Amino acid sequence: MDNQHIKIYKDLMGENDKWAAETRKLLTSNNITMLNLIGSPGSGKTTLLESMIGILGERYNFAVLEGDVETTRDAERLDSLNVPVSQLLTGGACHLEAKLVYNALCDLPLADLDIVFVENVGNLVCPAEFDIGEHAKVAVLSTTEGEDKPIKYPLLFREAGAVVISKTDLIPHISFDLKQCREFIRQVNNESPLFEVAASTGQGVQEWIDWTEKTRRHNNPSEFKFQ
Amino acid sequence: MDNQHIKIYKDLMGENDKWAAETRKLLTSNNITMLNLIGSPGSGKTTLLESMIGILGERYNFAVLEGDVETTRDAERLDSLNVPVSQLLTGGACHLEAKLVYNALCDLPLADLDIVFVENVGNLVCPAEFDIGEHAKVAVLSTTEGEDKPIKYPLLFREAGAVVISKTDLIPHISFDLKQCREFIRQVNNESPLFEVAASTGQGVQEWIDWTEKTRRHNNPSEFKFQ
Repeated sequence: MDNQHIKIYKDLMGENDKWAAETRKLLTSNNITMLNLIGSPGSGKTTLLESMIGILGERYNFAVLEGDVETTRDAERLDSLNVPVSQLLTGGACHLEAKLVYNALCDLPLADLDIVFVENVGNLVCPAEFDIGEHAKVAVLSTTEGEDKPIKYPLLFREAGAVVISKTDLIPHISFDLKQCREFIRQVNNESPLFEVAASTGQGVQEWIDWTEKTRRHNNPSEFKFQ
Repeated sequence: MDNQHIKIYKDLMGENDKWAAETRKLLTSNNITMLNLIGSPGSGKTTLLESMIGILGERYNFAVLEGDVETTRDAERLDSLNVPVSQLLTGGACHLEAKLVYNALCDLPLADLDIVFVENVGNLVCPAEFDIGEHAKVAVLSTTEGEDKPIKYPLLFREAGAVVISKTDLIPHISFDLKQCREFIRQVNNESPLFEVAASTGQGVQEWIDWTEKTRRHNNPSEFKFQ
């Protein structure tokens, strides 16, 4: 019986989990911490990475795996700042899968690295469903998206080891209830730390970097509850 | 052979197309125009609908099908403005499928309706892949997402019968190149009309309503090329 034309979703998920487990082994054996940044298109993921490069780069060797459907624009932004970056193109898919991440990691100088940041495809829904072997998912929500997104798209916020509210400098210009947003996040996740960041002014960036460093030192984000 | 435990993706797509065809028949026989609004979480889809209710409501009978992963928040917003609205919950899925839309349509007073707006799940990637029997997809991109999203997520912009750039009132407060954004949209779609809207001030809303009315009158969005 020839079933080669049938795509079996269940099997693909098993395949993903297998590669996520392989990635975890690879990270452990090279003592690398990997963080998976997830948020909507334009939520400020790349800008968040750009804002921490200078400070973090003095203490750690890191690389970025840049996930996109098409184009290398974000990778070019980071490359222009001399960040070691690889581009992962999904070819239309709305999320990164573990095998693609594993293959990209294998091409990096792992022995020289401390931290790998993965910037997932811009999407608040699907990337949260896929384990890529990361130590923590980081949810990035921009103020311009509205305070209710944590309860409208709860899976990511539930899964996240840290939540970053970005673009807080725009609050005076938009209708956004920060207190309500915090409460919505706490409705779905009462444990993970919450950071409020305006990358353009630098406000809140240091706290986010501090958490990244602590996570790196302990390599166990679950130790870092709400601060 | 018992294959009931295996989810067959290919078959689901065929199933979706079948229900999209049924939906088209249902819309045609009731002379209803259906528009499918697609954009990121917080891109301004609900606000765009809110902004046109008063003007459009004087001339047409319309209803809204509100797609969400969880919660009925957007439906409640529209219901409070006395818009006939049904909530379509995907139960975790990142897009609306045709069968759910068909079932929801069947429960509406179709003989009394002229236009149905579908607000899809907030997602710039997956909803563009699914035909739900609509007359046109409408891409909604907020200025806060950045001008490069049309080339980073080209499928939706390629498929769209109209593109709305929302939140143009925020341009003075952010880094957003409107001219470049227009060019990026034209790189992937040189035909569909482009609207620049600030729902909070009303700027550009009339042009968007005019297009909706023309589309309704002709029931053939492909007649309306770039204006």
